[in-house]
Amino acid sequence: MAKKPLNIGLVGYGFMGRTHSNGYKRAPDFFPELEYTPVLKAVCGRNEEKTKDFAAKWGYESYETDWKALVARDDIDAIDICTPNNTHNEIAIAAAKAGKMVLCEKPIARTTAEGAEMVTAVEEAGVANTVWYNYRRIPAVSLAKKLIDEGRLGRIFHYRSNFLQDWTINADLPQGGEALWRLDAEAAGSGVTGDLLAHCIDTAMWLNGGIVDVSAMTETFIKERMHQLTGKMEKVTIDDACVFHCHFANGSLGLFESTRYARGHKALYTLEINGEHGSIRWDLHDLNHLEYFDHRDDSLVRGWHKVHVSDGDMPYMDHWWVPGLSIGYEHSFVHQVADFLKSLEDGTVCEPSFKTALETAKVCDAVLESAAERKWVDIA
Amino acid sequence: MAKKPLNIGLVGYGFMGRTHSNGYKRAPDFFPELEYTPVLKAVCGRNEEKTKDFAAKWGYESYETDWKALVARDDIDAIDICTPNNTHNEIAIAAAKAGKMVLCEKPIARTTAEGAEMVTAVEEAGVANTVWYNYRRIPAVSLAKKLIDEGRLGRIFHYRSNFLQDWTINADLPQGGEALWRLDAEAAGSGVTGDLLAHCIDTAMWLNGGIVDVSAMTETFIKERMHQLTGKMEKVTIDDACVFHCHFANGSLGLFESTRYARGHKALYTLEINGEHGSIRWDLHDLNHLEYFDHRDDSLVRGWHKVHVSDGDMPYMDHWWVPGLSIGYEHSFVHQVADFLKSLEDGTVCEPSFKTALETAKVCDAVLESAAERKWVDIA
Amino acid sequence: MAKKPLNIGLVGYGFMGRTHSNGYKRAPDFFPELEYTPVLKAVCGRNEEKTKDFAAKWGYESYETDWKALVARDDIDAIDICTPNNTHNEIAIAAAKAGKMVLCEKPIARTTAEGAEMVTAVEEAGVANTVWYNYRRIPAVSLAKKLIDEGRLGRIFHYRSNFLQDWTINADLPQGGEALWRLDAEAAGSGVTGDLLAHCIDTAMWLNGGIVDVSAMTETFIKERMHQLTGKMEKVTIDDACVFHCHFANGSLGLFESTRYARGHKALYTLEINGEHGSIRWDLHDLNHLEYFDHRDDSLVRGWHKVHVSDGDMPYMDHWWVPGLSIGYEHSFVHQVADFLKSLEDGTVCEPSFKTALETAKVCDAVLESAAERKWVDIA
Amino acid sequence: MAKKPLNIGLVGYGFMGRTHSNGYKRAPDFFPELEYTPVLKAVCGRNEEKTKDFAAKWGYESYETDWKALVARDDIDAIDICTPNNTHNEIAIAAAKAGKMVLCEKPIARTTAEGAEMVTAVEEAGVANTVWYNYRRIPAVSLAKKLIDEGRLGRIFHYRSNFLQDWTINADLPQGGEALWRLDAEAAGSGVTGDLLAHCIDTAMWLNGGIVDVSAMTETFIKERMHQLTGKMEKVTIDDACVFHCHFANGSLGLFESTRYARGHKALYTLEINGEHGSIRWDLHDLNHLEYFDHRDDSLVRGWHKVHVSDGDMPYMDHWWVPGLSIGYEHSFVHQVADFLKSLEDGTVCEPSFKTALETAKVCDAVLESAAERKWVDIA
Repeated sequence: MAKKPLNIGLVGYGFMGRTHSNGYKRAPDFFPELEYTPVLKAVCGRNEEKTKDFAAKWGYESYETDWKALVARDDIDAIDICTPNNTHNEIAIAAAKAGKMVLCEKPIARTTAEGAEMVTAVEEAGVANTVWYNYRRIPAVSLAKKLIDEGRLGRIFHYRSNFLQDWTINADLPQGGEALWRLDAEAAGSGVTGDLLAHCIDTAMWLNGGIVDVSAMTETFIKERMHQLTGKMEKVTIDDACVFHCHFANGSLGLFESTRYARGHKALYTLEINGEHGSIRWDLHDLNHLEYFDHRDDSLVRGWHKVHVSDGDMPYMDHWWVPGLSIGYEHSFVHQVADFLKSLEDGTVCEPSFKTALETAKVCDAVLESAAERKWVDIA
Repeated sequence: MAKKPLNIGLVGYGFMGRTHSNGYKRAPDFFPELEYTPVLKAVCGRNEEKTKDFAAKWGYESYETDWKALVARDDIDAIDICTPNNTHNEIAIAAAKAGKMVLCEKPIARTTAEGAEMVTAVEEAGVANTVWYNYRRIPAVSLAKKLIDEGRLGRIFHYRSNFLQDWTINADLPQGGEALWRLDAEAAGSGVTGDLLAHCIDTAMWLNGGIVDVSAMTETFIKERMHQLTGKMEKVTIDDACVFHCHFANGSLGLFESTRYARGHKALYTLEINGEHGSIRWDLHDLNHLEYFDHRDDSLVRGWHKVHVSDGDMPYMDHWWVPGLSIGYEHSFVHQVADFLKSLEDGTVCEPSFKTALETAKVCDAVLESAAERKWVDIA
Repeated sequence: MAKKPLNIGLVGYGFMGRTHSNGYKRAPDFFPELEYTPVLKAVCGRNEEKTKDFAAKWGYESYETDWKALVARDDIDAIDICTPNNTHNEIAIAAAKAGKMVLCEKPIARTTAEGAEMVTAVEEAGVANTVWYNYRRIPAVSLAKKLIDEGRLGRIFHYRSNFLQDWTINADLPQGGEALWRLDAEAAGSGVTGDLLAHCIDTAMWLNGGIVDVSAMTETFIKERMHQLTGKMEKVTIDDACVFHCHFANGSLGLFESTRYARGHKALYTLEINGEHGSIRWDLHDLNHLEYFDHRDDSLVRGWHKVHVSDGDMPYMDHWWVPGLSIGYEHSFVHQVADFLKSLEDGTVCEPSFKTALETAKVCDAVLESAAERKWVDIA
Repeated sequence: MAKKPLNIGLVGYGFMGRTHSNGYKRAPDFFPELEYTPVLKAVCGRNEEKTKDFAAKWGYESYETDWKALVARDDIDAIDICTPNNTHNEIAIAAAKAGKMVLCEKPIARTTAEGAEMVTAVEEAGVANTVWYNYRRIPAVSLAKKLIDEGRLGRIFHYRSNFLQDWTINADLPQGGEALWRLDAEAAGSGVTGDLLAHCIDTAMWLNGGIVDVSAMTETFIKERMHQLTGKMEKVTIDDACVFHCHFANGSLGLFESTRYARGHKALYTLEINGEHGSIRWDLHDLNHLEYFDHRDDSLVRGWHKVHVSDGDMPYMDHWWVPGLSIGYEHSFVHQVADFLKSLEDGTVCEPSFKTALETAKVCDAVLESAAERKWVDIA
């Protein structure tokens, strides 16, 4: 069976540029049934030397230093945006107008307003689109979705989720520039809210439905940092930490926290959901396990099941190795590529679409407003 | 060395009556150096048969059916209050006025107002007093206090604590009466806030200092339950779940949650504190372990230390067995008895005193007000 | 209901003297339904001052300095032997001949030969007898027994058990004398084999039936230590470490290891049993949990159940607190006292009887012979 | 920098054919500094359709159906053997004689005798060679090696290692043929000994040095299974389970166990090493963590460190993502490819060489002999 090529134009060659590139290269090996095959047509970055080097390392056929040139190329089918959040809006809209499919790294944009324009653009253009909320596609998380959708937990009472890191505690760490734009609200939109809580919120709404109102608190522990663009000490504009509680539309209570000041936690994304019949929990540091509790178990042996999500009947796992053998973080991106390609075959939407991802942006905006105003904020 | 007797008059023979009685009986065996020895002089309860039976089982020399009679007895040194929260105020004040020492089960009372009167009473009477926030005296928790006080964590950024249970999910469970007064706000003051979060708050303020403001959300999932006193379906008046975030006086952020609707968690009291140099966490289901992270560890072996708190140099543990051998929940009460007896020897205060416990009541009241009013509330 | 007194005469006031004494004092409080009540009549030790002090601390009515005098007393119903292993034989036989019940700390004796004489003595005298293999009565271990007896695991393939400690690694630690007789084969009979593996073997045979042959290896890492009785460096005569594999009568394979040279393990007694349908594992450092795996679980949620053994339907737990609240090491002795008292009421045997405990001695002897001879040894 | 191609000829397209192919394709992306780049020149298998299909899926340029033809090709630099164990000897020797580098899946062969011929062949031919004991290159295991080599543990007392699976418990599972040759001793040489314990032994000798003698026990629980080649019930010739204890040359004791009858364990490879100052343990189900205990830690915080091996200063991890993000099983093969390519650059040996892997074969043979003869066997 001859494969259909899908010509990829990647914008940005940072951390996410690597995870996406790896996704494109691995998907055909492990999902050989797919009709489409990604072709690494071009990568684009402002620094020519680094862009060229990235193209050579990853096997991109060509490179560009102006994303507008990339978008204008006829030999590109899909634009994948891996640049800082402040560029998502402009690139995505231009790509959509040029009739390209658009894959955008999360969060969709800095704000709901920016994101809404992007939704309009892709919908008017009628182009395939998706946002890389990759954690949905960790097999254990996909399994959680399946178990919840089967109704195993019954009525839901609680959802709680954390994303804890500790990499910005040192006050000597600067902000801004290519490496540290996530510490600059101008580039990132916000701090942990858009970077980390956005993941928690996307998964939460996927698993547990919409959020109706929020009450939040944010904090910036280090008030000033050297800015890499100005070379001067500048006010830190992002939220270092954010916690919020909320109501879901189904009546359950949500509790979310993220920080980059939790010593001992490198990237501890955790989630737990409690229902009338059972509960589920998961954490990213041990990502192949899902914990599951079922009150209907015989009382003498009732306890949390620690499920090693590696058997062939688990989501995605028939494509990998054998029971007991772990996969890692990067595989979530391979899965998203595979699902995106499959959606093209099937003519379906690869979730989260821009439209779906906009809902997360709305919650993030409400969280930031709530924290700023010290009041509850309803989600429109 | 002849021991000095301390004649105890216990009010209430329920769950807490048992834990306290066990504490009085075990303390002399394991803390033989103490000058005072508790004597189980009398137990008091309204139901004569049950009270008499309890006295026989636990070895109380006598019993009473009216607490006023107990308070009036000359042969009682200390009144220990294990009755529902709505009785704490009256009994404690009467006991203090009668010149008795007062030990009161937590929370101090239903409200700050009730508690404040009790503080005044014991202070005016000049009698020894303490509130049974027993979890301070789990050796692992006491060790956490020691490590924090030594400054090992540095500047504190985060404190988070949960108390999760699942025993009231069944809608057929009634409310009220002797066994289920904790589900009736008239008797208990509140639901999980006063029953469970009060523990979390007491420990938190002991470890991390005062709380300055709170923003909370409560929920009552089951709206009506059969009331055991009226025999009718009645509105449920307690909070089934409560979450709040807050600021501590030291600038750190707090996040607290409690519920009786978290399937799979029987009595999961957890706490975690994150500082600039390190972090500590603990949970009640595995109470002999303390987890500790120190960023100053050599980077190749840096990770959470899982410390089995059973060696002789750990708090209280020189009184028990040998390294590796666990103790349990009930030992926290034995330790509180021992510390109370020691405080009498030394003329010091056995913390938490009524005055200290009132601070927890203030936070609880603020939490309930914040939830009711949907706004931030400052702690006076 | 008037209680029947059971007058206890305790021989030895060391670590085990404390655990047994605590058992006698706690059992009536928590098992009030028992017909018999232990009375701490007398404690016996060679050092008068220490014995008198122990009697005062624990509330023994009297003391003796010669165990023969104790055995001769008319007011003693049961002799409890907590002295070094080399004294078990003589005391137990004398006690039985005097018509006393005999409770003996494990192992029954230094050798099978010594133990066999003791079995004969108690059987000829017709007196109640038991050996304190207390770990059977950790609720999680008792639950394992129940689950296995119900046939939940099906045909058994494997049993493995470790007892790892690290307290003798320091070469400066002396041997012998009152505190360190466990390091002297003359007093103890053997090293880790009789002290620690004996526990593993007793539990194993209780759960999985008899052992038919063994192949073992022992090691003494520190060859000489200062002897506290001679004041000189003397050859170390005990086994510091012992491992063996074996066949059980049911066709399953056994694997056992014990050492006092495993850094990081204070008293890590672990056991695991694998059957055709399921598996069970447990460890002493987290003694309230039992882990259970059932292959018949739905494959999507199949995993080890972590059961917190604290609910009222779990073995012994209806006598303690409420779900989620842990008990500790010492409770296993309280349970053995309660079961012994119950056996007197019922006229049944309190297992392990001397006869049962002799089977463990046989395995220990075979293990030591196998290691010495470097060959397989059949159990008679 | 132009890359030097290394033309790979792969023999076998099963499970290991996939892991190796993935290794060749991933290594250049994540180790771009390497001078050599693998080129997937040809794959060889007896079934033409399957071989052709595999070549298409993985991007091999060509395929062969006779390994002798592959070995004869001038455009192949290295032969990678992924076929059943009974073919390793012949293919490896032919490849060496043809001047090809040889990479051989473990174990080196069915027996020491077969393996010794292979060592001779590659040494006489002077060709680069390695055996795929991939678990050495899990970063956490490589870190263990580094910590031990730095002397952090001091004198070693114990090494214990298990490899537990449960996939052959069903008596209806057949043996033999392409999919189940591991259950047929003619093809595999032995059962769990060569398949699973060989991994444990390779890692053990790498970490802790040579083994001098062994005492073993094996068992075959299911005596007969349908053979896929004959279609008849045939005697099962492999060992279903194997345990052995041993002495290492450094005086420490070893204890090893493997089985495919341990319900609940899919691929639970565990190892633990105990030294005078500290201990290390690891397990494959949670492969990104290493647990480390250091007795020199301050006693109040002394406990097992749970190290998430994901930081850039950990072995191999500077080539992957960021701290906290996990990698998986397959990465160990990518690392072995990278190290093999580097060894070509440097003119060094990529361990384990055939010669080193022969030492593992010797231990396996001794284990099987010991079990068969029920006696201790010295390693030559």
